[in-house]
Amino acid sequence: MIPTTREDPSDAELISHKLLVRAGYIRKLAAGIYTYLPLGLRVIKKIEDIIRVEMAAAGATELLLPIVIPAELWKESGRWDVYGKELLRFKDRGEREFCIGPTHEEVITDLIRREVKSYRDLPKNLFQIQTKFRDEIRPRFGLMRGREFLMKDGYSFDVSEEMALQTYKRMYDAYTNIFKKCGLDFKAVEAATGTIGGTYSHEFHAIASSGEDTIFHCSKCEYAASHERALTVKKRLLDEANELLKATPPSEGSFEYVETPNVKSVKDVSSFLKVSESDIVKTLIYKLVLPSEKEQYIAALISGDDELVEPKLILSLFQAGIIPSMDVQISMASEDEIIKLTGAPAGFSGPIGLPDEVVVVADYRIYLKDKFVTGGNKKDMHLKSVSWQNCRIQLFADIRKARDGDECPVVSVGADGNEIPCDGKLIEKRGIEVGQVFYLGTKYSDKMNAVFLDEKGTQQKMVMGCYGIGVGRTAAAIVEQCHDDKGIVWPLAVAPFECHLIALYDKEGHVEYMANDIYLGMLEANIDVLYDNRYVRPGVKFVDADLIGIPYQVIVSAKSIEDGMVDLKERATGKMERMDVQDAINKIAEAIKCLQEQF
Amino acid sequence: MIPTTREDPSDAELISHKLLVRAGYIRKLAAGIYTYLPLGLRVIKKIEDIIRVEMAAAGATELLLPIVIPAELWKESGRWDVYGKELLRFKDRGEREFCIGPTHEEVITDLIRREVKSYRDLPKNLFQIQTKFRDEIRPRFGLMRGREFLMKDGYSFDVSEEMALQTYKRMYDAYTNIFKKCGLDFKAVEAATGTIGGTYSHEFHAIASSGEDTIFHCSKCEYAASHERALTVKKRLLDEANELLKATPPSEGSFEYVETPNVKSVKDVSSFLKVSESDIVKTLIYKLVLPSEKEQYIAALISGDDELVEPKLILSLFQAGIIPSMDVQISMASEDEIIKLTGAPAGFSGPIGLPDEVVVVADYRIYLKDKFVTGGNKKDMHLKSVSWQNCRIQLFADIRKARDGDECPVVSVGADGNEIPCDGKLIEKRGIEVGQVFYLGTKYSDKMNAVFLDEKGTQQKMVMGCYGIGVGRTAAAIVEQCHDDKGIVWPLAVAPFECHLIALYDKEGHVEYMANDIYLGMLEANIDVLYDNRYVRPGVKFVDADLIGIPYQVIVSAKSIEDGMVDLKERATGKMERMDVQDAINKIAEAIKCLQEQF
Repeated sequence: MIPTTREDPSDAELISHKLLVRAGYIRKLAAGIYTYLPLGLRVIKKIEDIIRVEMAAAGATELLLPIVIPAELWKESGRWDVYGKELLRFKDRGEREFCIGPTHEEVITDLIRREVKSYRDLPKNLFQIQTKFRDEIRPRFGLMRGREFLMKDGYSFDVSEEMALQTYKRMYDAYTNIFKKCGLDFKAVEAATGTIGGTYSHEFHAIASSGEDTIFHCSKCEYAASHERALTVKKRLLDEANELLKATPPSEGSFEYVETPNVKSVKDVSSFLKVSESDIVKTLIYKLVLPSEKEQYIAALISGDDELVEPKLILSLFQAGIIPSMDVQISMASEDEIIKLTGAPAGFSGPIGLPDEVVVVADYRIYLKDKFVTGGNKKDMHLKSVSWQNCRIQLFADIRKARDGDECPVVSVGADGNEIPCDGKLIEKRGIEVGQVFYLGTKYSDKMNAVFLDEKGTQQKMVMGCYGIGVGRTAAAIVEQCHDDKGIVWPLAVAPFECHLIALYDKEGHVEYMANDIYLGMLEANIDVLYDNRYVRPGVKFVDADLIGIPYQVIVSAKSIEDGMVDLKERATGKMERMDVQDAINKIAEAIKCLQEQF
Repeated sequence: MIPTTREDPSDAELISHKLLVRAGYIRKLAAGIYTYLPLGLRVIKKIEDIIRVEMAAAGATELLLPIVIPAELWKESGRWDVYGKELLRFKDRGEREFCIGPTHEEVITDLIRREVKSYRDLPKNLFQIQTKFRDEIRPRFGLMRGREFLMKDGYSFDVSEEMALQTYKRMYDAYTNIFKKCGLDFKAVEAATGTIGGTYSHEFHAIASSGEDTIFHCSKCEYAASHERALTVKKRLLDEANELLKATPPSEGSFEYVETPNVKSVKDVSSFLKVSESDIVKTLIYKLVLPSEKEQYIAALISGDDELVEPKLILSLFQAGIIPSMDVQISMASEDEIIKLTGAPAGFSGPIGLPDEVVVVADYRIYLKDKFVTGGNKKDMHLKSVSWQNCRIQLFADIRKARDGDECPVVSVGADGNEIPCDGKLIEKRGIEVGQVFYLGTKYSDKMNAVFLDEKGTQQKMVMGCYGIGVGRTAAAIVEQCHDDKGIVWPLAVAPFECHLIALYDKEGHVEYMANDIYLGMLEANIDVLYDNRYVRPGVKFVDADLIGIPYQVIVSAKSIEDGMVDLKERATGKMERMDVQDAINKIAEAIKCLQEQF
């Protein structure tokens, strides 16, 4: 059941999507919903096995939680209302509300709070590998962004932050091993925490130009972060800016109004006033809804040539004590709200003259600017020659999106106690997120009252972490990295089979006889072998074999068997060598053994 | 994560439900929805592995179909409307209709019809192991009748009926091997076909007094059938009855009306008229809706002490050519319909004077009766001294439920060509249905146009079969058979671990030191070992170990290790023996090896 085709699926943009369909690994049933054909399932099982071995080594135990989850648990955590349309909700025949679990923090926390009473029962570290469903608004890229998808999700419960961070580190290391074993070129990067919540997270990205995400890493040190997290300024410099800010009372300044009729965007202002985009400061008005339901407006100032990163804004506000929690909903203020707050339509917002209730935060690059142009808070008006001292700024923060070539933000401490600023530069790459680890703290144990009695008999909240791997997406990411113009080139560890036995039948049946024998010999040598015993032309077999991408091809022809030989071809290099049957088997068996020992 | 408890769950009726919860294998999340805790999942994986080995040996290949299925496919097969509320239907965010697949005939038929063009691509035999959801009206018995459950479902596609029946036989044999390996006491019985459809089926039943189903098997020959299928009369005798029926024109008879005011049930009529229940003939009015939407009323006559079996009635009507297909919907006629057809309320229906459009079918036992009582088709009236010749019967058929002690229906043909009637008796047993195989024929390929070109280039319908195993239910059925008053007694092949290492710690730490060493020795000997290294009383460990039910217990105590010995206890027999550590390890390893060789 390996239905190869020569045509790309019409909806495929990514090479992995095209190749996995064409080589007979997957088939689409509906948007974002795929069947794993036998070859596809074999790759999945290889990846799952790698995951299971590493999880066991890291002390995590496998269980299987239900797919169908009662709404009550999601209401308890508060996510029933927050989670959008991705959450598939339904009522059963008794009109009770349920959802299909896109993630299982609630279910596992409910299980653990029932079963665990004492510190003696902790830590717990549990995982499952399960089909999940998220009703993505735009499913695409084959397995990369599906609605139904296979996921490994794990959850840990510890007695303290210290222990939980140790578990986090162990999971981080296990994930590193898993993706290494899968043969991926990947980076673990600091990440924002998103819907899952929590305060600390790393994403694992497979490096690929087709990746949906942008990540940064330092050219010299170990620093790496997602674009939602990557810092652009060293902390000491930011602290200095804020110290100066505190010491500097806002001043009136000598700015002047300039008419800018219907000129709103940075680009238009730049050409209208004949200034560069970096001479302009954008004022973005955000509305935050806090956990208390209280609303807070923020004016965020950012250089005209920069992009603001919302998670960095939230993190900065939280770290500066301006908001009490990172668990906030953020959105751009509406046109009506902007008019009400600034007195002018969107496009003319500026920092000067805003109501006191609006918190003004400026990106660090504003601090470096001398004079700049801002909105005038009047229709069709901008301000010129503004300096940051005129702007009632409450905080300088690192809220812009990093760029390739930015300075590395890291400062390490040397053996002599002195600070050593890293002089590396940030390098921008595209990545496919294949895994993520979260330190959750007590986010869920607070809401769901997951407690235990400590050694003194005092009730404590469990400290949690959660850890996910997109299993199908990992398979697709491997294909993004491992292919050539002929097809897939699987790494041995995750290949659906280790060897592809290709028999070029002769009329006399000699080849068939020999090939059958070689097949049995390979099975005896514990080689996973796919036997192409179809009665089709050699060309079809060769093209299919390269497309399917099994690491070793063994070709049996009438010519080769005259001398008891076969042709052994390495898919990756294309190198073909004629050799004795047993030598070929030994060579493949040796490579498999090597791989196992290496792990 | 093995949270044992001493208390039975409050909703548990079955011993398997009680023990699987108490011994820490499963936990309930909602009605009919369970978490498999790590021990439970290990048992499931052992069963899955047994299934995978046997499926591979029988030539079936594993794939993974989606859980979420577009409604269109189910509409094409016609099941969208027929399938009741068990089918969980929902709309996605784009308002498209989907269901959660309770079974996958449509999806696999759609896949195969797209990929298979020629007889050269056939046969195909594919299976998956997947979580399914059926919104059962009364989920109960733990894993036995859940809403979310693990199922192995397989589907075969062949070029002809002959080939399809060979595949069916191979699957039947594979199922036999699977349940044997699982250590089950089971019977394969002829079965009715139900919602899935098709014409030929066997159910595999684990024998258990708690089983929901009734099955029958012969005391002498191989005959075995579900209560929906079990025959109660030899075909030749039934043929004779029908021959006589054809030769006998209905006669007026000498029956007489008798007033039975408000006396309706067989029990009431029997005591009111002072006759035995077997002197009464019930007339059951059924409405059949044929595939053409045409309605057909049936009056089914059955002895007052018998029970009618609807699938046997449908099969008999089909075999006699009275209905064109077995794909009919059957229901009891409503009170209104009964009044319209018989002129009297329910409880007074009888065979005499029914409209011609009603087909009258009588169970074979009616043929054996001389005179009997029936309903009078008038309110508060019955008839006495009726004989079958008075009743305008169109068919004698075998439509009653078999009973323990009935004669075996089998007639075999001897070497000399003579018929040899089996003189065995039917034995009634209770069973848990753990698997079912169906010969589907072209039911789905007709409706979904699954065709291929044969050797002559002619378009042909694929001939299908389908094959299911309830994986979770199999685990529960094993527990129903394998337990004692202390807990579960797993067969070695499906036990979550092969050995339970129980360390009774001393203060000096000698036991801990030795037990750790023994643990490593067991792992080296490839024994799946569960190590009870908790700091709890020996009594707690012993009770838990017996409850959990791992086949071998190795107990390490301060006393035993003085001489380098351990106590080896067999869970099944309770036999305990003190022996050298290495002897104990060898004995267990030997048992595992034995088991593997036996398979």
